[in-house]
Amino acid sequence: MTSPISSPPISQSARRPTTAVILAAGLGTRMRSSLPKAQHLLGGRPMIAHLIATAKEVFDHIVVVVGPGMDEMARLCAPHAIVVQENRLGTGHAARQAADLFGSGDVAVLYADNPLITASTMRRLLDARRTPGTVLALLAMRPHEPGRYGRVVTDDERVLRIVEWKDATDEERGIGLCNAGVLCADAEDLRQWLSDIRADNAQKEYYLTDVVALAARNGTVRCVEAPEAELAGINSRAELARAEGTLQTRLRDAALDAGVTLVAPETVFFSADTVLESDVVVEPHVVFGPGVIVRSGAKVRAFSHLEGCEVRAGALIGPYARLRPGTVCEENSHVGNFVELKAVRLGEGAKANHLTYLGDASIGPRTNVGAGTITCNYDGYFKHRTDIGADAFIGSDAILVAPVTIGDGALIAAGSVITHDVAPDALALGRARQVDKPGAAKVLRETLKTRKEQR
Amino acid sequence: MTSPISSPPISQSARRPTTAVILAAGLGTRMRSSLPKAQHLLGGRPMIAHLIATAKEVFDHIVVVVGPGMDEMARLCAPHAIVVQENRLGTGHAARQAADLFGSGDVAVLYADNPLITASTMRRLLDARRTPGTVLALLAMRPHEPGRYGRVVTDDERVLRIVEWKDATDEERGIGLCNAGVLCADAEDLRQWLSDIRADNAQKEYYLTDVVALAARNGTVRCVEAPEAELAGINSRAELARAEGTLQTRLRDAALDAGVTLVAPETVFFSADTVLESDVVVEPHVVFGPGVIVRSGAKVRAFSHLEGCEVRAGALIGPYARLRPGTVCEENSHVGNFVELKAVRLGEGAKANHLTYLGDASIGPRTNVGAGTITCNYDGYFKHRTDIGADAFIGSDAILVAPVTIGDGALIAAGSVITHDVAPDALALGRARQVDKPGAAKVLRETLKTRKEQR
Amino acid sequence: MTSPISSPPISQSARRPTTAVILAAGLGTRMRSSLPKAQHLLGGRPMIAHLIATAKEVFDHIVVVVGPGMDEMARLCAPHAIVVQENRLGTGHAARQAADLFGSGDVAVLYADNPLITASTMRRLLDARRTPGTVLALLAMRPHEPGRYGRVVTDDERVLRIVEWKDATDEERGIGLCNAGVLCADAEDLRQWLSDIRADNAQKEYYLTDVVALAARNGTVRCVEAPEAELAGINSRAELARAEGTLQTRLRDAALDAGVTLVAPETVFFSADTVLESDVVVEPHVVFGPGVIVRSGAKVRAFSHLEGCEVRAGALIGPYARLRPGTVCEENSHVGNFVELKAVRLGEGAKANHLTYLGDASIGPRTNVGAGTITCNYDGYFKHRTDIGADAFIGSDAILVAPVTIGDGALIAAGSVITHDVAPDALALGRARQVDKPGAAKVLRETLKTRKEQR
Repeated sequence: MTSPISSPPISQSARRPTTAVILAAGLGTRMRSSLPKAQHLLGGRPMIAHLIATAKEVFDHIVVVVGPGMDEMARLCAPHAIVVQENRLGTGHAARQAADLFGSGDVAVLYADNPLITASTMRRLLDARRTPGTVLALLAMRPHEPGRYGRVVTDDERVLRIVEWKDATDEERGIGLCNAGVLCADAEDLRQWLSDIRADNAQKEYYLTDVVALAARNGTVRCVEAPEAELAGINSRAELARAEGTLQTRLRDAALDAGVTLVAPETVFFSADTVLESDVVVEPHVVFGPGVIVRSGAKVRAFSHLEGCEVRAGALIGPYARLRPGTVCEENSHVGNFVELKAVRLGEGAKANHLTYLGDASIGPRTNVGAGTITCNYDGYFKHRTDIGADAFIGSDAILVAPVTIGDGALIAAGSVITHDVAPDALALGRARQVDKPGAAKVLRETLKTRKEQR
Repeated sequence: MTSPISSPPISQSARRPTTAVILAAGLGTRMRSSLPKAQHLLGGRPMIAHLIATAKEVFDHIVVVVGPGMDEMARLCAPHAIVVQENRLGTGHAARQAADLFGSGDVAVLYADNPLITASTMRRLLDARRTPGTVLALLAMRPHEPGRYGRVVTDDERVLRIVEWKDATDEERGIGLCNAGVLCADAEDLRQWLSDIRADNAQKEYYLTDVVALAARNGTVRCVEAPEAELAGINSRAELARAEGTLQTRLRDAALDAGVTLVAPETVFFSADTVLESDVVVEPHVVFGPGVIVRSGAKVRAFSHLEGCEVRAGALIGPYARLRPGTVCEENSHVGNFVELKAVRLGEGAKANHLTYLGDASIGPRTNVGAGTITCNYDGYFKHRTDIGADAFIGSDAILVAPVTIGDGALIAAGSVITHDVAPDALALGRARQVDKPGAAKVLRETLKTRKEQR
Repeated sequence: MTSPISSPPISQSARRPTTAVILAAGLGTRMRSSLPKAQHLLGGRPMIAHLIATAKEVFDHIVVVVGPGMDEMARLCAPHAIVVQENRLGTGHAARQAADLFGSGDVAVLYADNPLITASTMRRLLDARRTPGTVLALLAMRPHEPGRYGRVVTDDERVLRIVEWKDATDEERGIGLCNAGVLCADAEDLRQWLSDIRADNAQKEYYLTDVVALAARNGTVRCVEAPEAELAGINSRAELARAEGTLQTRLRDAALDAGVTLVAPETVFFSADTVLESDVVVEPHVVFGPGVIVRSGAKVRAFSHLEGCEVRAGALIGPYARLRPGTVCEENSHVGNFVELKAVRLGEGAKANHLTYLGDASIGPRTNVGAGTITCNYDGYFKHRTDIGADAFIGSDAILVAPVTIGDGALIAAGSVITHDVAPDALALGRARQVDKPGAAKVLRETLKTRKEQR
């Protein structure tokens, strides 16, 4: 009943151990970024984290090959095994760095810049590898623009050979099926082939793809076709944007399937972990950052921005509401326009409808927080809490200087600065009396007008 | 000169009475919703209301068949006749429930989940029915993916037969023309055929489509082709989102044709009744809720949200302005960022440009409402009014505790809480005097710093 | 490293003078606008300004033909030569008005409603004209829907003739190559041909296209093909919206190529002059008005709106931040939600994170501006400045009545109205003391409740 894309649990049918080796050492110069390529975000989550999350559903062990100095990448991969490729001598060389960690069983080599490959595709790759007589399975795709990809020459699902574009005849270039680079083989075999490949090419690099020709001498090589959207590499910001589009389409479709109304799906942006239950309504132009759960029957209005929060049944959020991490909006609560909640528990039926900032606070059930209310939760050094009871009424433009507690049923007069606790059912005021000066506005206006005319 | 899609008034040429029977009993389980299918919204209006509005342009009488317990649906259909289908025994059975209300003349059977059918298509259906020798006319479409729709076998516009997908030969499945289910016949004939159809099928249901074969025995059956976008059924949230896209495209195109500048039409969302006059400019990312009129020469800037309001010539709205029901922005008035107006009349040339909440208020011509101004219009039990005169100046962060009246030319000092009326040309203050404590900030800072270091 | 589309400097290879004549007299009745067609905006800049900016890259001289009374258009074209076409007698007549300003060398005639033609296309037109034996070069395109455009009959790149749609045979109508109207010839030749064309047609207008037949008698006419997106005329709001889409796609692609992350490029709107450096991240739903520069490593979060401002490295803007002209956000400064800055210099590491309006102000490094802070910079007649020093702490909901200066390290208590300068390290307060009335809230509540029940 929840929207994120999930998969059935890993098939336990074949009990050979499985290992995924993820190549993540690339810098991605075409990204023009100081950030390593696989750390760029998709759906608010680093590319590498997507791939690890999916691989975990399918493989017993995960090994990530990173480049030197990629400490943040290594941190993102924890607790999985990390191998550092000190010199970037090609994909074959990268995979070889992990050879000691292949263990026994089946090993698949994946790429950090193909983060949207699905668990189902990974399983189909493993299954193909295990087809009797098959020594190696590889993934192929039919790109919209095949360009300079290597072409896969097949006889049904049996791979005859892979032809590099530069070596291909015109007829071979006409083949739509392209090598995606991802492959799977027995650990022992793969170790052997990786030690046999040579860097006898213009770039002096070891190519993982050269393994295919070696494998073909030992048995059948099979090919599993998958959609381009899963396998297209991410090498530039334009390709990153396209992959984000693919991911968002998946997440939107999953939400719709789960019974969520998205008035304009193309204007709603999800994080990979967003959970929306059935009969949630989301208006146009909404952004869900990481860690959001919205329960059945809640409504998220236009121009809202939610992160790290839970919205319960019947709650009404927005338009222009910003919910920040640690916030829970209880049943039938309302958060209105230009309102920011950070680490707030907004009680059942409570309302904060206009121009308000609440931080580090709890608001009791049915309490009404007036327009312009602000919790002063920060003194420049420490954060302090504001706790408001049930059935309280916080008048407009109240300033609540934390730490402070407002009792059940208390009333804060509009425009008050509240610096100490207010007892239940008490009325608290902290504002000056109105003083009127008849005619003074006219005098002032005429003075200013004259001054302006004289300029 | 206005943008909503309108149609020429109903043709009075043929004076046979006409009745539209709308089948709206479906629950729509594939919507995964607790709301009956036809109550889901498109362009901010329930699907059933769209269909009724269009049918009213073409037909003399409307009868809606609803399911048991659908009180809200019945309310939405008022004042039109309602028939309750107590048991859901198929579309033929549903139509039969309304037989007593067919009257004489022509009867068309429409579906609540085809809400985007146009008046022009309805008229073409009626015209086809009235072609000499024709006993029944039906609507057909050529879907992008014909799938399991029944195929319409035709000889020019004469329908030979309708073949259900499961009974169709491969050749028949290759036919692109599909039955949309909507049909029109003489009241007497239709009543007869509906009583003749049988539920002798696997589902034990009465299918309206079976009427076609009965009709074919009596005379010619004709087919009227209409675009898929009008006739594609709405059975899931994904289909609902697609229909919303169709409707929005119609509304955007109509606005552009009316001389409205939409910088980025794909990011602007209309309600079915939005009215924008020529030379209105709408920036990207704007949402129009129900009941909005924007007059010639007004500009709606990015990220604005308007509902139930009128914006007059020369007014400048947004960015980030929210206008709520009952608001009128008079000529050349300005509403700026993070400003919410609810049931407000903002006078000619008046301005409320920053971080303001005005509710249940009138603001006189040329009055300037400073940043952070808030009307306290609610005391937890009652709403009260704020009335501000012409040429007044409301200083920043003023709190106006309603009910309160501010006279023409009055001046409210910044930061004041105003609790009683202010006379014309008077200056009102309600704020404390500034007190300075030299060096005290430094002392406090050092205390806090030390405390933080000690933690 | 910057994103706007730029072109290599004008080729100096051929030293014949070059003149662009831009026809901008059209009113554009299909726009349904009181604004002349070429003054409508694309990317925040009038159509005519786009064309002039591009033409300046390629041509030595620019002459614009405007209609009578188009003073604003003439102003937009300054300092280039303006000719007024008093009577609208067709494109040939319009071009003839500029004949005295053709000078010598090559003259190209461009249209103000083709503002997205690129410098590269203009250069290819000039080069084609200079191909030996060529007396005239013209631009052609292959529109998606060729409709009623004149067809260009060619033998390779040599134009045999142009056939008007109404005169074309079915075979000629099948030709996809259409006349875009833009042409280039020797000044002397063009002057002659323009004086030779006749208005002997139904409209009694002089058509520029008639020049082609005259040219063909003197030598070769060549054709240069360019994409429809550059040459499709803008005659309606729908076409204007489509052209805006073309321009936005160019600007988004350029930003991505420059190493900018656009999470959802289709939701980000640029002005023609927006500059984003590499490793800038832009979240969905952001609008860049004219005059924005964002430096490497800054992040612009969702729903932000920037105009005329500079955002420096490491700064974090939004969500829901509005930066207005004259604002500079220094390194690592933060501008948060529902915050408006107008003509503000926000110092290094300074923060204004919630519900704030700062106008005509400078904020020192590391200063924290609390939620709800407002500068009162306007008294209805004059604007005044607010200057805040380094390491200051402005408590929430502070009202700073300008002109006012707050010293380094000063502390403003929450909820204070500050009307005079605050010394460095001083603490300033301007708020009333809190007064509590035990039980009073309960009494008031019960009174209101009773009153409500009695109504």
